[in-house]
Amino acid sequence: MEQRLSLVTLGVVDLPRARAFYERLGWRGQEVEQTVFFQAGGLAVVLWARDKLAADAGITDAGIPDAGTDGFGGLSLAQNVRSREEVDAVLAEASAAGATVTRPARNTFYGGYAGCFTDPDGHVWEIAWNPGFPLAADGTITLPTF
Amino acid sequence: MEQRLSLVTLGVVDLPRARAFYERLGWRGQEVEQTVFFQAGGLAVVLWARDKLAADAGITDAGIPDAGTDGFGGLSLAQNVRSREEVDAVLAEASAAGATVTRPARNTFYGGYAGCFTDPDGHVWEIAWNPGFPLAADGTITLPTF
Repeated sequence: MEQRLSLVTLGVVDLPRARAFYERLGWRGQEVEQTVFFQAGGLAVVLWARDKLAADAGITDAGIPDAGTDGFGGLSLAQNVRSREEVDAVLAEASAAGATVTRPARNTFYGGYAGCFTDPDGHVWEIAWNPGFPLAADGTITLPTF
Repeated sequence: MEQRLSLVTLGVVDLPRARAFYERLGWRGQEVEQTVFFQAGGLAVVLWARDKLAADAGITDAGIPDAGTDGFGGLSLAQNVRSREEVDAVLAEASAAGATVTRPARNTFYGGYAGCFTDPDGHVWEIAWNPGFPLAADGTITLPTF
């Protein structure tokens, strides 16, 4: 199995709500067959109905713990940015767009600065400035040799 | 917020078990501070303790429904491959490595072929051949204009 990822599909309970949230963050995608596709670097971030996503994967969904959220899915997405100030700016933008900031930005043990929010379906995003992980002009990251 | 993703962090209950699973699939990474980092194209796939990941994000983890799995996290990861045969090969490899094939490979409505498995912590992977999504030599995908 090659060491790469092609799509990350976020299960959502209300597609127009989820799409509007990411569009308020400035994302632009295409909708086809009640699925929204966002190009995100060399992969795609996709929004699709949570019940269809579970059924399609042959998984029984234990359900959504709180109305409008899916609790902790055991996984987080992260976007690394170029400065401490950009962390604050993205968290403020997400909050204004309807996200819940679950961890305000703070210094991290690795000498960076990061905070987290959840989207309207409870998917966790971390926004981080990590001076140890080089970020290319096109936004790709390359892990250092630790 | 830029339209890109830097890391996908999979919460795991047993780091050596999770690392060994991905290594059986041929993935190679680096471990530092009880965290395993795999370079995956222009981003990183990371393995980290599920309880630490939740706490770090300021999220209360409702818990793991079944021992050794985390139920459906409301999200799936996908890897697109170059042929129908490669879907079968990767699913067989994952199964031999200890994955649970939750949906055997089958033809899809979009004219492709795909199947799904869950890793030892219940994270869902879809392995898909989709002739409509061009896959570059380096494994990146570019969405078509629908």
